[in-house]
Parts: sequence; structure tokens; C-alpha cells
Amino acid sequence: MELFWGSGSPYAWRVQLALEIKGIAYQSRLIEFSKDEQRSPEMLALNPRGQVPVLRDGEVVVSQSIAILAYLERRHPEPALFGRTPGETGAIWQAVMEAALHLDGPADLFLVAMYYGEAEARQAEVRAALPPIAAELGRLEGTLHDRPYLAGLALTAADVVVYPMVRSLLRAADKPDAARFEHGLDGFSGRYPQLAAWMARVEALPGYERTYPPHWRKNP
Amino acid sequence: MELFWGSGSPYAWRVQLALEIKGIAYQSRLIEFSKDEQRSPEMLALNPRGQVPVLRDGEVVVSQSIAILAYLERRHPEPALFGRTPGETGAIWQAVMEAALHLDGPADLFLVAMYYGEAEARQAEVRAALPPIAAELGRLEGTLHDRPYLAGLALTAADVVVYPMVRSLLRAADKPDAARFEHGLDGFSGRYPQLAAWMARVEALPGYERTYPPHWRKNP
Repeated sequence: MELFWGSGSPYAWRVQLALEIKGIAYQSRLIEFSKDEQRSPEMLALNPRGQVPVLRDGEVVVSQSIAILAYLERRHPEPALFGRTPGETGAIWQAVMEAALHLDGPADLFLVAMYYGEAEARQAEVRAALPPIAAELGRLEGTLHDRPYLAGLALTAADVVVYPMVRSLLRAADKPDAARFEHGLDGFSGRYPQLAAWMARVEALPGYERTYPPHWRKNP
Repeated sequence: MELFWGSGSPYAWRVQLALEIKGIAYQSRLIEFSKDEQRSPEMLALNPRGQVPVLRDGEVVVSQSIAILAYLERRHPEPALFGRTPGETGAIWQAVMEAALHLDGPADLFLVAMYYGEAEARQAEVRAALPPIAAELGRLEGTLHDRPYLAGLALTAADVVVYPMVRSLLRAADKPDAARFEHGLDGFSGRYPQLAAWMARVEALPGYERTYPPHWRKNP
């Protein structure tokens, strides 16, 4: 298996986490966003949308992070990330789709604006994204009141999907440009104690360190 | 099983199609959007987001249309809607997630604006939604050049997810308010012949008629 990924992409990070958890060996193909390599002819042949992650496994090529997780589950069922019973599967997929449809859009907008110096140009959009981000973080915090992981007692695809986005939000909130917004991400562990404890659980996973975005080590 | 759904919701329609295809008997719980029943206390207890579809199966309650499809696949695996091999599963999930992340957002905006008389108030947003809708329809048209269904030779969850949204777009484009936009949905079968033929294939499914939005019969 080959994974085409970019350092700091929360979408690629999901797949890296799943590969570690499932103990799947893979070849790392690091794409440099700064060189626009995700839109190279080779990459566009794999994914015409010019986005990572892309997984290649022999003849099979899959893009879209959540689709790759579903593929990996079928290819390497253990340990299960999508549950062992229909009820577990339903709860996990509901949490995955809620993240994809309610958190990812506004969070991605905030990340991109802070990472690429667009905070001023996209002020109105950033402001509009903050209430849904806060609402989703509030829901996740509530979910964790009676369970250690987002879909129950065990780590699942829900955690793998949500963690990289929340972790990326915290990094973006530390950028100087973020200070012009009331983003509510400062004092995170006080405001969202359950989420902070859950993040520490994810970060204690064997293999977590191998998935940490390499350029964040130099530029946190 | 009980399905809470609303007439004309493309999201609920996905689940209705899957239930028919899998031959699962269920109790129909029709929610009246005109009375805001999706936000009744009973419905909010099932889905705090106040949205349908919601599926209840004994103790299990699942919302988010795509999550419900994944649940149904686990509960009633035959006929398979998410493939029989890892490669099929990857291709189907990729198509499902591309629809959820690239088509549903702009298409939903267009539908809501045309259905609820918001065409004038939301002109700029509608105009911005039209190019991505056209781009996604173009991609789907291209996909169907060498296959009868979106993910290959058989009908899958990809078709179940995409069909109700495309069908809803065509209805919305026939509303008088749509005439003020160059939406490119007129002359659909000339512009998108593969998609039109694919729609006819879906509409020939046994059980399709039972899923057709009842209020569309009176008000096409």
C-alpha cells in the first residue's frame, strides 16, 4: 500500500491514524503542498480533484479520507474501527457523518484562513464559521461526559475522523492572526475538559507519534 | 423498524430506496415539514439536530442518511449496496463521499431557495452554487460513459445517494423562480444523456414508485 499525504492535512492524518491502529505497513508518499504537488499530472491521474489523501493498493486507488477508512476496514477488518454489531456501526457512522457534514466545513475554513494569511480577506466567512465550530465542539464535549471515546468505550473511526480536525483547530487558534477573532479555542482544556482528556487518550495510542505532522515539529 | 421521513427530502429518499432494494419491511412515520414536526419534542429526542431521516430499530436510533445506509448494510447485508470486495467497497464509498461533500451542499442550497421562495433573497448564494452543481453533474455524466451505474455494473449505495438529489434538482429547476438563473438543468437529457438513462434505470427498480415523494404527485 502507498499513501499519498500532505503534512498537516487533517484528512490525511485520519488515514495515517487508521493505518497505525490496524498495524498496516505502507509506503509513505509525502506530497508538498508548497509545491502544489497534489495537482501534479501523476497525482491528478490518481485523483482528478487534486486532493490528498489518496491510497493506492495494487490496482485499487481510493480518495476521500472517510472512503479510505471504509476501504481499510474491509481490507483489514481487525481491529475493527466501525464496530462489531449493527448498533455500534450505526452510532459510529452517525458520528463520522456528523463530523464530515457539520464540523469539517467550518473548521476547514478557519484552518485555511489562519494557515494561509487569509484572516483579513475572509473575515466575514471566518466569523460565520465560528458559531458552528463552537456548537459542534459543545456537542462533542457533551458526548464524552459518559464515555471515553466518541462512539463508546473503544476507539473507533469516529475518533480517527474528529481528532485531527480538533487538533488542527487548536494549532490554527495559536496563529497570530487568530487573535482578531473571538474563536473560543483559547483555554481549551478549561472550556472543554472532556475533549482535552479524550485528545490525551488519542495521543497515547501506540503509533500516534509517527502520524504527527512533521512540519509542525519545526513550526508548531 | 420505523423510518421518520419527510416527503421530498432527498436525504430521506435515500433510505427509502435502500429499504425497498433490501426488501426490509418498515413502519412509515411521515413528518410534516410544513408543521415543523421534525423539531417536535419527540423528534428532537431522537435527533437533536431536528432533521430527518431518522431510523429506529428497537433500541437503536440512527440519523444521517449515509450512516443509516451503512447501518442497514450491516443489519441486512443482502443485496449488498456497499460491494462484495474491498475494491468495490472503496469505489462505492468514494462516490458516496464525493456526493456528500461536493454535490449535496450546493444542490441543497439550490433546492431550498427554489422550494421556499428564497430565490431573490439568496440570489448571490444560488449563483455561486450553480458552477459546482454543473461540475459534479459533468463528472457523474463522465463516469457513466463506461458503466450503467455510478460505481460499476450493479446498483449500489452510490446510486441510492446521488439519485434523489439529482431528481430533486430537476424538480427545483422547473419552479418559476428558477427561470431567473442560468442553471443549465433545462434540456437535461440532451445535456446529460448518460445521467438521464441512468435515472430511468433507477426509476425502473421494483419498489421505486413506493418511494416517490407523495406530495410531488399533486404538485410536481
